Amino acid sequence: MIDLIQYNSKTQRVLKNIQPDEVIRSIRQAPGNAVTWVDVEIDQVQMVHELAQFFRLHDLNLEDILTPNHLPKIDILHDYIFTTLKMLSVVEGQIVAEQVSIVLGKQFVLTFQEIEGDVFERVRQRIHTGMGKIWQKEADYLFYLLLDAIVDHYFNAVECLRDKIEDLEDLIEHDSSEDISYEITALKKQMRSLRKYIVPLKTELLRLRTENQRWIKTHTLTYIQDIVDNLNHLSATFDTFRDMLNDLMDLHLSYLSHSMNRVMKTLTVVSTIFIPLTFIVGVYGMNFDYMPELRWQWSYPIVWAIMIMMSLGMLGLMRWKKWF
Amino acid sequence: MIDLIQYNSKTQRVLKNIQPDEVIRSIRQAPGNAVTWVDVEIDQVQMVHELAQFFRLHDLNLEDILTPNHLPKIDILHDYIFTTLKMLSVVEGQIVAEQVSIVLGKQFVLTFQEIEGDVFERVRQRIHTGMGKIWQKEADYLFYLLLDAIVDHYFNAVECLRDKIEDLEDLIEHDSSEDISYEITALKKQMRSLRKYIVPLKTELLRLRTENQRWIKTHTLTYIQDIVDNLNHLSATFDTFRDMLNDLMDLHLSYLSHSMNRVMKTLTVVSTIFIPLTFIVGVYGMNFDYMPELRWQWSYPIVWAIMIMMSLGMLGLMRWKKWF
Amino acid sequence: MIDLIQYNSKTQRVLKNIQPDEVIRSIRQAPGNAVTWVDVEIDQVQMVHELAQFFRLHDLNLEDILTPNHLPKIDILHDYIFTTLKMLSVVEGQIVAEQVSIVLGKQFVLTFQEIEGDVFERVRQRIHTGMGKIWQKEADYLFYLLLDAIVDHYFNAVECLRDKIEDLEDLIEHDSSEDISYEITALKKQMRSLRKYIVPLKTELLRLRTENQRWIKTHTLTYIQDIVDNLNHLSATFDTFRDMLNDLMDLHLSYLSHSMNRVMKTLTVVSTIFIPLTFIVGVYGMNFDYMPELRWQWSYPIVWAIMIMMSLGMLGLMRWKKWF
Amino acid sequence: MIDLIQYNSKTQRVLKNIQPDEVIRSIRQAPGNAVTWVDVEIDQVQMVHELAQFFRLHDLNLEDILTPNHLPKIDILHDYIFTTLKMLSVVEGQIVAEQVSIVLGKQFVLTFQEIEGDVFERVRQRIHTGMGKIWQKEADYLFYLLLDAIVDHYFNAVECLRDKIEDLEDLIEHDSSEDISYEITALKKQMRSLRKYIVPLKTELLRLRTENQRWIKTHTLTYIQDIVDNLNHLSATFDTFRDMLNDLMDLHLSYLSHSMNRVMKTLTVVSTIFIPLTFIVGVYGMNFDYMPELRWQWSYPIVWAIMIMMSLGMLGLMRWKKWF
Amino acid sequence: MIDLIQYNSKTQRVLKNIQPDEVIRSIRQAPGNAVTWVDVEIDQVQMVHELAQFFRLHDLNLEDILTPNHLPKIDILHDYIFTTLKMLSVVEGQIVAEQVSIVLGKQFVLTFQEIEGDVFERVRQRIHTGMGKIWQKEADYLFYLLLDAIVDHYFNAVECLRDKIEDLEDLIEHDSSEDISYEITALKKQMRSLRKYIVPLKTELLRLRTENQRWIKTHTLTYIQDIVDNLNHLSATFDTFRDMLNDLMDLHLSYLSHSMNRVMKTLTVVSTIFIPLTFIVGVYGMNFDYMPELRWQWSYPIVWAIMIMMSLGMLGLMRWKKWF
Repeated sequence: MIDLIQYNSKTQRVLKNIQPDEVIRSIRQAPGNAVTWVDVEIDQVQMVHELAQFFRLHDLNLEDILTPNHLPKIDILHDYIFTTLKMLSVVEGQIVAEQVSIVLGKQFVLTFQEIEGDVFERVRQRIHTGMGKIWQKEADYLFYLLLDAIVDHYFNAVECLRDKIEDLEDLIEHDSSEDISYEITALKKQMRSLRKYIVPLKTELLRLRTENQRWIKTHTLTYIQDIVDNLNHLSATFDTFRDMLNDLMDLHLSYLSHSMNRVMKTLTVVSTIFIPLTFIVGVYGMNFDYMPELRWQWSYPIVWAIMIMMSLGMLGLMRWKKWF
Repeated sequence: MIDLIQYNSKTQRVLKNIQPDEVIRSIRQAPGNAVTWVDVEIDQVQMVHELAQFFRLHDLNLEDILTPNHLPKIDILHDYIFTTLKMLSVVEGQIVAEQVSIVLGKQFVLTFQEIEGDVFERVRQRIHTGMGKIWQKEADYLFYLLLDAIVDHYFNAVECLRDKIEDLEDLIEHDSSEDISYEITALKKQMRSLRKYIVPLKTELLRLRTENQRWIKTHTLTYIQDIVDNLNHLSATFDTFRDMLNDLMDLHLSYLSHSMNRVMKTLTVVSTIFIPLTFIVGVYGMNFDYMPELRWQWSYPIVWAIMIMMSLGMLGLMRWKKWF
Repeated sequence: MIDLIQYNSKTQRVLKNIQPDEVIRSIRQAPGNAVTWVDVEIDQVQMVHELAQFFRLHDLNLEDILTPNHLPKIDILHDYIFTTLKMLSVVEGQIVAEQVSIVLGKQFVLTFQEIEGDVFERVRQRIHTGMGKIWQKEADYLFYLLLDAIVDHYFNAVECLRDKIEDLEDLIEHDSSEDISYEITALKKQMRSLRKYIVPLKTELLRLRTENQRWIKTHTLTYIQDIVDNLNHLSATFDTFRDMLNDLMDLHLSYLSHSMNRVMKTLTVVSTIFIPLTFIVGVYGMNFDYMPELRWQWSYPIVWAIMIMMSLGMLGLMRWKKWF
Repeated sequence: MIDLIQYNSKTQRVLKNIQPDEVIRSIRQAPGNAVTWVDVEIDQVQMVHELAQFFRLHDLNLEDILTPNHLPKIDILHDYIFTTLKMLSVVEGQIVAEQVSIVLGKQFVLTFQEIEGDVFERVRQRIHTGMGKIWQKEADYLFYLLLDAIVDHYFNAVECLRDKIEDLEDLIEHDSSEDISYEITALKKQMRSLRKYIVPLKTELLRLRTENQRWIKTHTLTYIQDIVDNLNHLSATFDTFRDMLNDLMDLHLSYLSHSMNRVMKTLTVVSTIFIPLTFIVGVYGMNFDYMPELRWQWSYPIVWAIMIMMSLGMLGLMRWKKWF
Repeated sequence: MIDLIQYNSKTQRVLKNIQPDEVIRSIRQAPGNAVTWVDVEIDQVQMVHELAQFFRLHDLNLEDILTPNHLPKIDILHDYIFTTLKMLSVVEGQIVAEQVSIVLGKQFVLTFQEIEGDVFERVRQRIHTGMGKIWQKEADYLFYLLLDAIVDHYFNAVECLRDKIEDLEDLIEHDSSEDISYEITALKKQMRSLRKYIVPLKTELLRLRTENQRWIKTHTLTYIQDIVDNLNHLSATFDTFRDMLNDLMDLHLSYLSHSMNRVMKTLTVVSTIFIPLTFIVGVYGMNFDYMPELRWQWSYPIVWAIMIMMSLGMLGLMRWKKWF
């Protein structure tokens, strides 16, 4: 349920599936410069409450941790920085979203997840191996690494969406059924929901620079600026996606118009040729007693000749007008 | 008509259906740190005038209280903060809007409603039970609770609208009648009127932070920021709704095009097959004396064979072109 | 031509149809705290020039007064505040626009109108009756009252436009002629021209608060803020109108598509049923000598039976596809 | 090639078609408070280089003067203010654009034109007659007059475009050929290119107020603000034009839909009436031996009666459905 | 792999295909005021790492250099300014993009390219010939020259795109096949990807002015402002392109509608004339025994006369309605 990782430049310690009181004990006994990361699954509400009380989290933040349906936001309080955002992962071609909250305080980082996923696995590895001198660094660097891991997974989700759009792009030329309209609308909907999770985070991160806060050092802000750059990239990508999907819809509707145009032309070609001919043969199907042509010997071949010439003339005219 | 609730950490007092002079007496006799909430129905204009005079409300604010058709706004004056906004509730699947004005002054809150609804019931409960240490808090916290109760009901209204949009979304695939166009336009209209009530409130609330004002403490501003976050969420939701409704309209029009395309194809298939055949049988309906085919024994079966082959050829060609 | 109203807390004086020199004399002889309002019709250019010289108006302002085709603007100069804007009134269901310029200086207000209308009548009444303690107030309050009277009339113009849009909204369901397209475009055009007169005024008024100026007291700025709120309301209304008209156009075009769809379905139903039948009767109209069916006794009723069954089958199929 | 005008409150001097060295000499010998305006045609590159060297123009500005394809911009340098913009004039109903650069320095103004046009003629007249006390004013006022003359001509160009749009507006009701689509697109293109020349100038002029510069006095900035107001007016006009042209396109496409609807209705009316009738007469054209109706005496008139009744019924039905 | 150019006012030195240690040695031995430009191809990752270590580049910048898929950005660090952007060149009518990173530090400039192209050839020439007093100038001027060379090539790419759009514009009148829709969408896509490389650079360059940085002198900032002006020009061009392509799509769809309208009119004209005629000849093809007209001598010519008159009447009516 609760995992705890504690490290400094000399030692590191990992506790798995512990109780809140063990967390509290570990933090109280921590060596002076040790950083503690507590990773909590929020399904045991009671534990979350105990931890929130120990770390003196604000009531509203506790509510944010426990209710998963939130836009990303960062609250800068006196004692800690509270972040809640969506973790996106691609599972079997589908994008799965999960709420995660991160609290950065004095020498500790708390993470609250719905299900313990593997997005943070890379960070755990990094702490384990001490890569990038993480053992010498402080809690704000861990905070950055966690955010970075999450934002890196956003790229996977966005690429998954791009693949779907490009698959549709390939399809649109060969298939003009109404499923395409439906697909485009569905992708737009999916894009909107992804965008909602990702884009507001940028504004929130920028507040870390502009507002007074105690826990993130200037040096680490450079790294955070890098996350902001990534989010800018993602934000521009969403704008591109929207344009791409709008263009696809336009293209689809234009193909539909072309298709209807072709159908109409076929009808018009056939009708324009055969309706006059049917009239002609109708004329000589009349039963008047006095129709001299009916008696002439060459009438029948002449009528055929006239009809063939008319047809060819029509076809030539329509060809010249580039109807087919 | 007028209800009054007075409370501090030691005592609480509720007066129902009282006259303005009783309000004035209660406030004058109130213990030093007591918060007074006066809830007024605006249908008795005379009473409103008396109260406005006692609390020294500006003429323009009085006008705002009495004329219900206003955009939300907050006026920060020297003696009090004046807020007017819409209260939205969902009654039998319909969204009902009502004007409410809130005045926050030194140790008092006034609310002016058109009809005494149950939106504030939760706040009354809270005062009654003393939940959340409200008895220790001041008038600005009550002001926050009232605003919060109103904004919470906005979510109900917005969810009611979302349900309607999603019902339409399900309908659109099976029904392409013109009622759908009408429904989409009607929902857009409804969304615009809801948006008008909700979105401007955000800007107004932000002014509480930026402008100098005396009555809201920094601590309470954190709570108010939470309302602003909720309004941001709602505002983003409206943008999503607009996109959804635009997409629905596009989808509906594309389904309409597809439907017309199908109709045209049916007409073209039937015409393209039968018009040439009608011409052929017309040929042998002519009454020329010299038509050798008419005399041949196998003419009739041969004509049938030709016509069947032509039809099959046409059908095959159209099948190959994926017309049906 | 020129009307003059002079008032203070003790006395008031009205002069009608006077000459510029009388204006100058009245102002020179005015008691110390009297406010003078000079209302000028601009058709006598010479008089305007004389007054402009006396009040030391800038050349560019004089040009603005005399040339009626201007966007609203406010110039803040050292000696006075110059405002030019449009006065809108509804005459027999039509919106009429007229240029008006207002100059606010030390204890005087000048208004320059094209035709003396009745928009300012309410202000004259107010001065006459001394309502709202106007006699105790200074020139800036008169300036506010004049602006307020003009902006109040904007609401009439906007409501007149709203009525027209809603009339069209009712019409659109029953009439899909091209007059509707034309009407929508015409209303859009009218809305744009109204918008042009009203919306820029807001920005200009806001400059009264932000820029240094001597003639409007802080107290009066509160009233002016109320005008700005009204203009914000109007501005939001224009956005709503644009959306409404765009939606109407979309709805109209969708009704048009539906109408074309219905026409095409009718054609297709009739053609799909009768063209094959016509082919069948054509077959038995052929004159081949060897057509055994022609000789059979039951051929004719059998052909009828086949044709009726075919028709019913077709109708059933099309009914099942919901074509009618 | 090079014209020079030198003036102060006592004297004025005009030199036409002079050489760069004469310019230099004139400036060196100029009385203390004289303003010198040097108007240069840029076709003699060598002369431009000499002047640029004498007036110490920056290399990049020299490049801007000589290459005509630039957006309007203002560079504020230590020694002078450099402005490059487009001069627009209407020649035989066509809008002609020409690059012009203006340099304002200490007591001199340089203008570089492609061809010496008559846009500045009004300014020359003004200097000649000393109108508006120009002889008492300094170089910055001349700079304003030149800009003002150019911007005044912008209004002519914009009005020329408005005339074209309104001509098209009148045409659109009577003509729905594809030339209209083409015309609208062409006008949009022309509007975009005009807009590109005019709108950026506003931002550039505003920098004269906000950035530190030495050569334009506060008094003259009031006049420049007037140019900015004019450019705001023009900018709003372009937005209106874009909306007008978009509305025209919508209107044109809606007329096109209406036209197609009418065509389809005609086809459907004719087909719906005559195709069933043709079927009926086809029935009695069959050659079955046993068709009792063929022998009856009243068959023929009865068939006619049925057909007439059917036609009238159809017509009535279609009339009732408002098809024509 | 690595080229090095070192120059000051007295001497210049060019080394080609050297190793990182030679670079380091050259820089250590450089005369006091010499500027060193190191041009590196990034395919040998090891060399890049060595250089990055020597010049103390930040890890994130090293990552930016080696991973080519980046939006343009400028990082201002304590020791150097890091720029990464796209180099665009036109090869055989196709636009080719390549990532390039530029590092400006104390008296050195590093460039990292994917492939050594000829975009910087002009700068090499300039150093070689000492044109523009480059030998007297410092590293920031070289930095400007490199950026300028890249942005100059952007204009080629944009002109290449403009050519393609204008080719399509010419085509659209004569060809209304669905290839046009496809082409327009493809050009939009290409424009979006170009825009993504170019437009963000502007914001980044502006930060050089607003943020504290040590390496670019005020004098050189004027030159950099010139690049920003160019990027503004490009940015406005992209907006124009988007409008042009949207207009082209509208025009194409309107031509398509016109084309369908023409097809429908042809069908309607032919059907409207011949379907009624076919009915008439069908009437006299009936086999009733009692049809008096069949026996009359002038029936046949009369029927012809009626049919010809009907046709001419129809044609006249349709001509009058401007159908052809």
